[in-house]
Amino acid sequence: MTVSEVGEFGLIARVTARLPQGSATILGPGDDAAIVLASDGRVVVSTDLLVEGRHFRRDWSGGYDVGRKAAAANLADIAAMGAQPTSLVVGLACPPDLPLEWAEALADGLREESALVGASVVGGDVSRADSVIVAVTALGDLQGRAPVTRAGARAGDVVAVAGRLGWSAAGHAVLSRGFRSPRVLVDAHRRPEPPYAAGPAASVLGATAMCDVSDGLIADLGHLAVASGVGIDLRRDAFTVTRQLADAAQALGKDPIDWVLTGGEDHALVATFPATVALGADWRVVGAVRVGSGVTVDGEPWEGTAGHDHFARP
Amino acid sequence: MTVSEVGEFGLIARVTARLPQGSATILGPGDDAAIVLASDGRVVVSTDLLVEGRHFRRDWSGGYDVGRKAAAANLADIAAMGAQPTSLVVGLACPPDLPLEWAEALADGLREESALVGASVVGGDVSRADSVIVAVTALGDLQGRAPVTRAGARAGDVVAVAGRLGWSAAGHAVLSRGFRSPRVLVDAHRRPEPPYAAGPAASVLGATAMCDVSDGLIADLGHLAVASGVGIDLRRDAFTVTRQLADAAQALGKDPIDWVLTGGEDHALVATFPATVALGADWRVVGAVRVGSGVTVDGEPWEGTAGHDHFARP
Repeated sequence: MTVSEVGEFGLIARVTARLPQGSATILGPGDDAAIVLASDGRVVVSTDLLVEGRHFRRDWSGGYDVGRKAAAANLADIAAMGAQPTSLVVGLACPPDLPLEWAEALADGLREESALVGASVVGGDVSRADSVIVAVTALGDLQGRAPVTRAGARAGDVVAVAGRLGWSAAGHAVLSRGFRSPRVLVDAHRRPEPPYAAGPAASVLGATAMCDVSDGLIADLGHLAVASGVGIDLRRDAFTVTRQLADAAQALGKDPIDWVLTGGEDHALVATFPATVALGADWRVVGAVRVGSGVTVDGEPWEGTAGHDHFARP
Repeated sequence: MTVSEVGEFGLIARVTARLPQGSATILGPGDDAAIVLASDGRVVVSTDLLVEGRHFRRDWSGGYDVGRKAAAANLADIAAMGAQPTSLVVGLACPPDLPLEWAEALADGLREESALVGASVVGGDVSRADSVIVAVTALGDLQGRAPVTRAGARAGDVVAVAGRLGWSAAGHAVLSRGFRSPRVLVDAHRRPEPPYAAGPAASVLGATAMCDVSDGLIADLGHLAVASGVGIDLRRDAFTVTRQLADAAQALGKDPIDWVLTGGEDHALVATFPATVALGADWRVVGAVRVGSGVTVDGEPWEGTAGHDHFARP
């Protein structure tokens, strides 16, 4: 059965039936707008588009995978402010012949990823388009804390990472060569695993700046360095290249450190902390903030692409 | 110059430079997420997709028009809850050859429509796609009032409309026949003019239910009737068909009442009120809530299409 066979309102009814509401929801789907608790008196908001053929391929990822990934990309942005996600709204544009079960699986993926942080999908919109586009907006609650922006890093701070780096890029490289394994890498590309809890925890620890790694560590740290008016130096030997990444890189003739330093979409968190802070097990120190500008690796400029530009020419 | 010539980050920089921040913005564009005041302790949220070829055509509407319309569709949803809009986030997917000035005009339209209600664009995302898709999410503040949902209408209430009905549909019909005038109708299709202030005002007056008219009056009242568990009867002679609509309908061989009762996208507000409420000049009484179900006109079922289904077959 396709989405056009159940129609716009049939699709909405079937999708919303799969979306139970969380404790922050005051009014869920079905009205002109939803209403969500914002007891902090401020609301954190971020939006991301996932476009078929750019962010996912339907022959590589199922609806469930795309739902997990679309939710993760947005929930990680909320966590990267040091906030707790509360809710998502989701716009789905799709061709009329999209299988209904794909859309239902998308809802399942959105629900399950949101549930990891106690959030829920409170509303949405559907429309027709030539390819599938998923537009997600996430809301979050600072719970009385100050936000951790990109602008607070100071020379002398340490740079630390929580979560995986390079796994999604490695999975993408594997899929691009026509392979479906190693499964752990392919799954990392399909469904990133952001370290959500580390975001609010970093705020409590006293992080001076933070962002999520969506475009690549060097690219995203570049934005953080500009916003903070500092330079950042990474230590190459601080990055552990796991056996899975090393093996896949060797098989594909790649250098795995490229994936680690420039691969996006794992939605790791990277933050700066005063050097005196005792970081927990979630965080690995990978560099330091210095006077100056730009991002260097072992003191040298990084050769090669820093990250992804959606409009860059090949 | 095209968006690909300035690149993803160049596009973001040029667009955000056109987006001053309003009084509700705590942190605007440029970080992982924005932060907006939600002093009520609750936040109202609604999302809508506008898809090229479905909701707009670039040969009919400029970027500025699409920005106004995309903002209006979402701000009207917030007003229809009885809330005051505070902010928008906007996702833009577009082909790499989209003229940069189209994207800049889109930002101008979003800014100017938002400014009508004191809101601003606090964040967004851009991506590449084969056609233009604008995904807008609006946030709003209930300012201590109870929300006006679709579910509170009671038998004996009056049904009243604020704003225009049928103008956008008439403009669409004119454009579809290859004409560019009457300008007032064509402009109504390009840039709806929702009666934003009437939303919070209806809440203060004691509206029992409310929604915006995005799919068509009969269709949208049908949803309200279901949510409230009531029937609604409209009085055909309560709808004034303006000279512009009547003339255009005659020229195109149409019945203008079809546009008024089933045309969407003007984003009028329709609400139910206790019969004892003295409504101000913004509201015209057009019918009554009755025991039962469904929407009738002068006691009879409406023959013909009630409104729009994005996946319906022609």
